[in-house]
Amino acid sequence: MIYAGIDIGGTNIKSGLVDGDTGKLIRKTSCPFHKESGIAGAAQGIRASVERICGEEGISTAELGGIGVDVPGSISQDMSVVLHAYNLDFHHTPVKAEVEKMFPGLNVILANDADTAAYAELYGGAFSGAKTAVLLTLGTGLGGGIIIGGRIFRGGCGHGTEPGHMILNKDGELCTCGNRGCAETECAATWLKKQGIQLYHSDPNGLIREMAGDDVDKVDARMVVEAAKKKDPRAREVFGQYVDNLACAIVSFIHILDPEVVALGGGVSEAGDFLYEPLRRRVNEMNFFHSDYPIRPAKFGNDAGMIGSGMLAKNGYD
Amino acid sequence: MIYAGIDIGGTNIKSGLVDGDTGKLIRKTSCPFHKESGIAGAAQGIRASVERICGEEGISTAELGGIGVDVPGSISQDMSVVLHAYNLDFHHTPVKAEVEKMFPGLNVILANDADTAAYAELYGGAFSGAKTAVLLTLGTGLGGGIIIGGRIFRGGCGHGTEPGHMILNKDGELCTCGNRGCAETECAATWLKKQGIQLYHSDPNGLIREMAGDDVDKVDARMVVEAAKKKDPRAREVFGQYVDNLACAIVSFIHILDPEVVALGGGVSEAGDFLYEPLRRRVNEMNFFHSDYPIRPAKFGNDAGMIGSGMLAKNGYD
Repeated sequence: MIYAGIDIGGTNIKSGLVDGDTGKLIRKTSCPFHKESGIAGAAQGIRASVERICGEEGISTAELGGIGVDVPGSISQDMSVVLHAYNLDFHHTPVKAEVEKMFPGLNVILANDADTAAYAELYGGAFSGAKTAVLLTLGTGLGGGIIIGGRIFRGGCGHGTEPGHMILNKDGELCTCGNRGCAETECAATWLKKQGIQLYHSDPNGLIREMAGDDVDKVDARMVVEAAKKKDPRAREVFGQYVDNLACAIVSFIHILDPEVVALGGGVSEAGDFLYEPLRRRVNEMNFFHSDYPIRPAKFGNDAGMIGSGMLAKNGYD
Repeated sequence: MIYAGIDIGGTNIKSGLVDGDTGKLIRKTSCPFHKESGIAGAAQGIRASVERICGEEGISTAELGGIGVDVPGSISQDMSVVLHAYNLDFHHTPVKAEVEKMFPGLNVILANDADTAAYAELYGGAFSGAKTAVLLTLGTGLGGGIIIGGRIFRGGCGHGTEPGHMILNKDGELCTCGNRGCAETECAATWLKKQGIQLYHSDPNGLIREMAGDDVDKVDARMVVEAAKKKDPRAREVFGQYVDNLACAIVSFIHILDPEVVALGGGVSEAGDFLYEPLRRRVNEMNFFHSDYPIRPAKFGNDAGMIGSGMLAKNGYD
């Protein structure tokens, strides 16, 4: 059976068809998301997109097994309403009901996009064969999803999980959440960017200054990684510290969840062995169980939301 | 049906009978544990104890539904062998098989004592009615057990969990595990004791010096709590910082597990509202979900291992 997986983001709505047997994304498309048209506009965009790809696949939308929809935000405990998705300007928005209106007779399931990204990795991705796993997405913030028993773990009270706000450095820098030293503050790509900007100013002969030239706004996490790869000594120091921070976060997750796999997503995770080799070494040295935990790049990137939403439409939460 | 729950500790073996319907401990006894007699001696002590309490209850041991045994240590993934229980000097010790020899025909299940302590709280204790909960035991170290879906969570790879080694202050003091700033280093009773010893030396007019007199060895966590309750200003400061550390640890657990209840065990947890009121306030201020998570004292104290082991013998791990 085929399921539709929809990933609503701040600028685009991605719609895909997922083969429920294999978890493979068989078709996809996208349409713009306009905040000002709200959920009504988004639901129409979803209908048009899903009708188009169903048509291409030679099926009617009524033949779908169900539709999964994810958003970058929090979901009500009954999984029907988006409580807050700031990038979409959705607040107490009945997304499930609005999408169901567009597809009479089809079941719609609603999810958080970090959860669906983690869930997707179970299906031929970084979590293949695992039942307990952690995905950390290293971007502007640090998002993440937790899989326990082969299912999305939504927390004991249905609030979901916020792995980026595990505290790692309680006297550290202020996080946007109001606490200090959250994993997000210490491990997001933003940390590397901030350090890069400091190097730009403090190390006028360094590679970062050379790469960014006159424009400090060009400095980003990727540039720090590049400079470290090219053996700029100060950038290497910063990158080493970043690896240490991330190792501490992963070790904390290991001591609580003992996961079979940890996967990393987001731009920083594309640094390859330059990141993964020292990171695995540190995590293996530091963990209490003296065990070699696999740490891998997440596989599905921008497709993860569609795949995870589609498979969630098939399997449900429990 | 009645189950036996056995809690092997460094000095005593506690044996109890648990009513499988209610989780109530209906009889208990204990016998000494001698390291030098190893598991063979322990198993004989367990047989004698269980025969005695079964006799008192008017049943034969063959009528038991099963036997649960816990130890302060790590267990093999197949749950049959104690890998390391340093206080018992058990290393790769086949505890399940040795106890089964003493009770032909009865099933024996093996567990970690922090896990059984948490499990016990589901049965009329701090976790009644909950499915997802965290127990933190604040003693010399910081032990703990995690309940997910109404079951003991043994980690994704079967290593169990080590909540005391979640990192809270990555540049903080060295922990016995080799990492820095673990929850254990920041939140165990030992932290309070260390601060108390510092106050003894640095504050000659303080209450701690008055209470301990000439003997700095008398200073312990309880004394710091007492001095803070009696409004010694430096002791209050230390206690306030302790509450902050513990709040950070609990908030980290909340951001990962979103538990329905957090329970505290161990001596420090007996400080009453003096601890719980400021702690709940801090946790409620700090958590991302703006939710009032219940934080309660664990109920079963020294009986928890027997109750949890007995109920685990009934229900199994999954």
